[in-house]
Amino acid sequence: MVVLFVAITKVFAEDGYRLWLRYDPINNPGLLKEYKAAIQSLYLEKTTPTLTVAKTELLTATRGLLSVTLNSTSNVNANGTLILGTPAGSKLIASLKLDEQLATVGPEGYVIITATIKTKQCTIIAANNDVGVLYGTFHFIRLLQTHEHVTSLAIQSAPRIKYRILNHWDNLDRTVERGYAGFSLWDWHKLPDYIDPRYLDYARANASVGINGSVVTNVNANAQALTPQYLSKVAALADVFRPYGIRIYLTARFSAPVEIGGLKTADPLDAEVKEWWKKKVAEIYTYVPDFGGFVVKANSEGQPGPQSYQRSHADGANMLAEALGPYRGIVMWRAFVYDNNVPEDRAKQAYNEFKPLDGKFLTNVLVQVKNGPIDFQPREPFHPLFGAMPSTPLMMEFQLTQEYLGYATHLAYLAPLFKECLDSDTYAKGKGSFVSKVIDGSLEGHKASGMAGVANIGNDRNWCGHPIAQSNWYSFARLAWNPDLSAEEIANEWVRMTYNNEKEVVQTLSRIMMDSREAVVNYMTPLGLHHIMGWDHHYGPAPWIKDKPRADWTSVYYHQADNAAIGFDRTSKGSNALSQYSPEVQRIYEQLENCPEEYLLWVHHVPWDHKMKSGKTLWEELCGHYYNGAESVRKMQIAWNTLQGKIDEDRFRQVRSLLSIQYKEAIWWRNACVLYFQTFSKKDLPVGFEKPDKTLEYYQSLEFRFAPGIRPRW
Amino acid sequence: MVVLFVAITKVFAEDGYRLWLRYDPINNPGLLKEYKAAIQSLYLEKTTPTLTVAKTELLTATRGLLSVTLNSTSNVNANGTLILGTPAGSKLIASLKLDEQLATVGPEGYVIITATIKTKQCTIIAANNDVGVLYGTFHFIRLLQTHEHVTSLAIQSAPRIKYRILNHWDNLDRTVERGYAGFSLWDWHKLPDYIDPRYLDYARANASVGINGSVVTNVNANAQALTPQYLSKVAALADVFRPYGIRIYLTARFSAPVEIGGLKTADPLDAEVKEWWKKKVAEIYTYVPDFGGFVVKANSEGQPGPQSYQRSHADGANMLAEALGPYRGIVMWRAFVYDNNVPEDRAKQAYNEFKPLDGKFLTNVLVQVKNGPIDFQPREPFHPLFGAMPSTPLMMEFQLTQEYLGYATHLAYLAPLFKECLDSDTYAKGKGSFVSKVIDGSLEGHKASGMAGVANIGNDRNWCGHPIAQSNWYSFARLAWNPDLSAEEIANEWVRMTYNNEKEVVQTLSRIMMDSREAVVNYMTPLGLHHIMGWDHHYGPAPWIKDKPRADWTSVYYHQADNAAIGFDRTSKGSNALSQYSPEVQRIYEQLENCPEEYLLWVHHVPWDHKMKSGKTLWEELCGHYYNGAESVRKMQIAWNTLQGKIDEDRFRQVRSLLSIQYKEAIWWRNACVLYFQTFSKKDLPVGFEKPDKTLEYYQSLEFRFAPGIRPRW
Repeated sequence: MVVLFVAITKVFAEDGYRLWLRYDPINNPGLLKEYKAAIQSLYLEKTTPTLTVAKTELLTATRGLLSVTLNSTSNVNANGTLILGTPAGSKLIASLKLDEQLATVGPEGYVIITATIKTKQCTIIAANNDVGVLYGTFHFIRLLQTHEHVTSLAIQSAPRIKYRILNHWDNLDRTVERGYAGFSLWDWHKLPDYIDPRYLDYARANASVGINGSVVTNVNANAQALTPQYLSKVAALADVFRPYGIRIYLTARFSAPVEIGGLKTADPLDAEVKEWWKKKVAEIYTYVPDFGGFVVKANSEGQPGPQSYQRSHADGANMLAEALGPYRGIVMWRAFVYDNNVPEDRAKQAYNEFKPLDGKFLTNVLVQVKNGPIDFQPREPFHPLFGAMPSTPLMMEFQLTQEYLGYATHLAYLAPLFKECLDSDTYAKGKGSFVSKVIDGSLEGHKASGMAGVANIGNDRNWCGHPIAQSNWYSFARLAWNPDLSAEEIANEWVRMTYNNEKEVVQTLSRIMMDSREAVVNYMTPLGLHHIMGWDHHYGPAPWIKDKPRADWTSVYYHQADNAAIGFDRTSKGSNALSQYSPEVQRIYEQLENCPEEYLLWVHHVPWDHKMKSGKTLWEELCGHYYNGAESVRKMQIAWNTLQGKIDEDRFRQVRSLLSIQYKEAIWWRNACVLYFQTFSKKDLPVGFEKPDKTLEYYQSLEFRFAPGIRPRW
Repeated sequence: MVVLFVAITKVFAEDGYRLWLRYDPINNPGLLKEYKAAIQSLYLEKTTPTLTVAKTELLTATRGLLSVTLNSTSNVNANGTLILGTPAGSKLIASLKLDEQLATVGPEGYVIITATIKTKQCTIIAANNDVGVLYGTFHFIRLLQTHEHVTSLAIQSAPRIKYRILNHWDNLDRTVERGYAGFSLWDWHKLPDYIDPRYLDYARANASVGINGSVVTNVNANAQALTPQYLSKVAALADVFRPYGIRIYLTARFSAPVEIGGLKTADPLDAEVKEWWKKKVAEIYTYVPDFGGFVVKANSEGQPGPQSYQRSHADGANMLAEALGPYRGIVMWRAFVYDNNVPEDRAKQAYNEFKPLDGKFLTNVLVQVKNGPIDFQPREPFHPLFGAMPSTPLMMEFQLTQEYLGYATHLAYLAPLFKECLDSDTYAKGKGSFVSKVIDGSLEGHKASGMAGVANIGNDRNWCGHPIAQSNWYSFARLAWNPDLSAEEIANEWVRMTYNNEKEVVQTLSRIMMDSREAVVNYMTPLGLHHIMGWDHHYGPAPWIKDKPRADWTSVYYHQADNAAIGFDRTSKGSNALSQYSPEVQRIYEQLENCPEEYLLWVHHVPWDHKMKSGKTLWEELCGHYYNGAESVRKMQIAWNTLQGKIDEDRFRQVRSLLSIQYKEAIWWRNACVLYFQTFSKKDLPVGFEKPDKTLEYYQSLEFRFAPGIRPRW
């Protein structure tokens, strides 16, 4: 029979489709024995769509992991009974006196405890609502997948953040803006009648990590999505997602009343416009009774918005919030805005526009703020709005898709980037006022809280293009559940679930992942450099970009390199963007001498000869970072190669190929940037640094007409 | 261990990825015993890339089908030895005196014979070249998959057609023109360094059915594909395809010398232009030493061509052929042309332009002709060029992607359509001058022969969008190998390989497939109607299309309905398109009374009261066909539902959903067309026919902005 097993596994390649829910047989005999003893039958009193999902997942997981078929039982008459339910849905659970514990875990949390019931050893997964039972079930399965003991459990878990949401920048024609994993999952043409089985696997994967919302349309919105033709399709997706605890959201095109409503204006204070949105929202709820609400990108990058009618962002957001309020829907209003005029400092604009509006938003509005003030760069300081709008719930917007971190060909584990932001101290209410506390609402006592991730998911078989990029989906979700988890522990559990539990695999791959984002920073934008990538498609290095329609769409605007110095002066002597932060934060960055070097050129215009902490000049240090970055990729390659034979050959080869692309591109970034900045510094490369084998002109000549992730242009 | 098996199969859904190469264990004990006895070890003297592919496939197939691991042997010392090779590569094969048999099968054919060697029962798969061995290997595996006996084999097989080619209408941005199975397989951005494992499975699948060429770019061509940046990517694909006997071809944008060459003209008689193409072709061969050649769409639908410079199609084709000649590359010059002026009858244009050029093409030019004179309609008569250009090798162009047959949501097995054309008698050289004999070169003794299929393949997990649409890829290839196969036998073997060998499954599904194309004809374009679909995207019915830039892009141009009659008069009293056919063919169609009714409105303008063979009026008969068409889909649904539990649940559900869409859309076609034509006939629906539940105005109001398969338009 072993032959049969080989035959089956061979016919199905390990193509990454199964994500972190692989459920391959556990090969540790001791653990297997423990698990089999602890998990013998399933006790479930009630059947609901969500509990059925939990049950099915448990059956699938135990069949895969333990090679057993779990029996259902209606009595606790043997050891190893797994009891699932809520006090309302299960008399047994109600009888267990879990009230106190359950009171602390809220509507989505759960408890998992080992208990003796009628002399039998049982495991209880209990929650206040079915979705909590589902989350607890996935937690329990994760324990098995990561080889944890399950014989004396006393777990309580509840999400710190209320809205844990994926934003899909997916267009109705299935192109994906900034998508590098194929095209959109949503096959709008075949909806509503054809339900791609993949929608279910998408929902499963999200539920397994606690994602509870999905914005299925692009923030650069198309009003067609709000027409009945599309709402029936949205409803079909919502029906698929519902049992998994996932609500569907749409992006609202602000000019929809004009475009599909036939009105002459979209002025948010116009009575007809208000009425139109109220009716539209009412209509949406007939299709999707638990519709989540809208995300809006307004007055930004050409999108229409309230400012087109001399109204404020609050006017626009509140109009929609009023329409959604009766249904408990929310508005997520993005703070990523551009003035029509190029500002003195692009980094300051969101703060300038939104800070004065604090307190003016209705209670069902959240303002969605990108982690940094520029745009999802490999490294940015935290956004100055965090801590600056105490009366407004601020949502975090992270970007999982690697628009600026090498597309889906670069291995870049982003949890360290997320954590760097979440753990930043805003000092808004004194020391310890971390961004995470702004986001989870605890700093100011907001009930609404949210974290959005711009999805890196497409119809590539492995979901995210790069096998390791799945970890960014995973880690985003885990941090949305609990921002205090460390990047290391998330990497560790993801590797165990997605590859295997072998110590060498876990250690080696976790190490590669943990080092990867800093490698990208080094070969792309070290020392606080930012926004020096290719024009429009954002692929590859292009620090030479200038003379575009807006100065703040160029690279030279951001690096400010000249023969004397490099960097954007945001101190009190420059744009004074620092003034948007708390005095304590300003103090950290204001003085060139004290400024943390990883942000140096983000804050200061620094002479090429400036002496760095290492004793080297800025020029030498800059070159050092670029060369180290490329070298780090070579080290990642060496480390990866040690995994051959220890993980499946399919994914081993894929990542090996991708790392070789990454190494080429790291050299490309390094050479192009060093050669370009050298035209200002007029200095030689430090001794011993390999000379670029191509000229600056060569790098400047490269064109990429069909780079993915942009709207096709014919 | 059975539990383990269930676990594994459950974790991997039957998602259609494996196509007809599924290799699941054979569950017939008698056959299994026979096969295991006949296949015990593998004898292979030489290792080449292609023979390695053959060996790997045999190992995979026997491991899956028979649950055995085939041993390699270097001696024939036991029964059940499988001997693979060519006389040149194997001393044993050379010693077997197969010269006579091998002489008849040519460069790509093979023999499979049971023989006794040194008293041992052996099976020999021999060919003149490695690729023949590979084809023979797949044939042998097919015998196992379809439960044929293998103990006394005496098979000789050789392809009747030399160039068996898929045309991918894939753009460099991965959109696919007329593609309904997701987006392009070719991930150009990640090429050449990242080889998607799917490229290998694509090559395997093609080799298994004898496809030996792939045109990877759209006929609406982009000159960028000929730049070094893309040629290095093309080379990487060619390297993947080579061991599978597949040569790569590109589409040549006629104006490339201007667009990427910097020349002022693309005039094919200009010396600089000729020189440019010669250099470009030489350059291509440095990347792809076995490059196949070019497909060209010139002076058609806005594409540039020689006529832009007052030169003929022959001038254009010969210029490219001259450049390719030294490398044995070919030009496939498409006959699908449009004059800039709307012709009296679009059906006549290709003939008018190409017939006079017969004999003027160089020998490495093939003229590629669509099966019918209009454009891949559900039913068309054969193209009048077949048989009309005796001095020119004509290639067949079939469309596998269902541009006009319901996209990937309608079940439409196309082999009957292909066969209808191939089996048509042109009478070019008297009775029996079948299209198939024009195409395979035998009618006029051409050495070059070809058949192209516009691929229905995309990055959908199941390759073709609809699980059953895989059969169109399969049957096209099988007919390119042997145009005399019947649609029934191909359906039969495909079902056995792709689903299972249960009699009820084979019979039921084959029956559904065999009836499906006629159903589509009936609910879309019965009785010879054609080209009455939605504007531009070609989705759904729209017989009302008129007033467009060109008359021959409208529907009213083709159906010519008025209050008295309907149909396009192509007889001698009308456009006389019939005159382009042989007198014998003309005679069949010229008289309204004798004209085969399935082509009636293609040839005649027929009064609504015309008495049909059934005794009904034309109007009644037309309605009858429309209603029967929709009813056929309902019958397909009923038949399909009987397969529940007899095939895998995954694909069962998918097809069930798709059939329900097909039924809705069949009703839509029926209602919209009947209501529209009723505005001319002014007649009631025949008694007993269910009245459409929507108005004509409703159907006319429907809009589909994001129908798939067109270039996204923002």
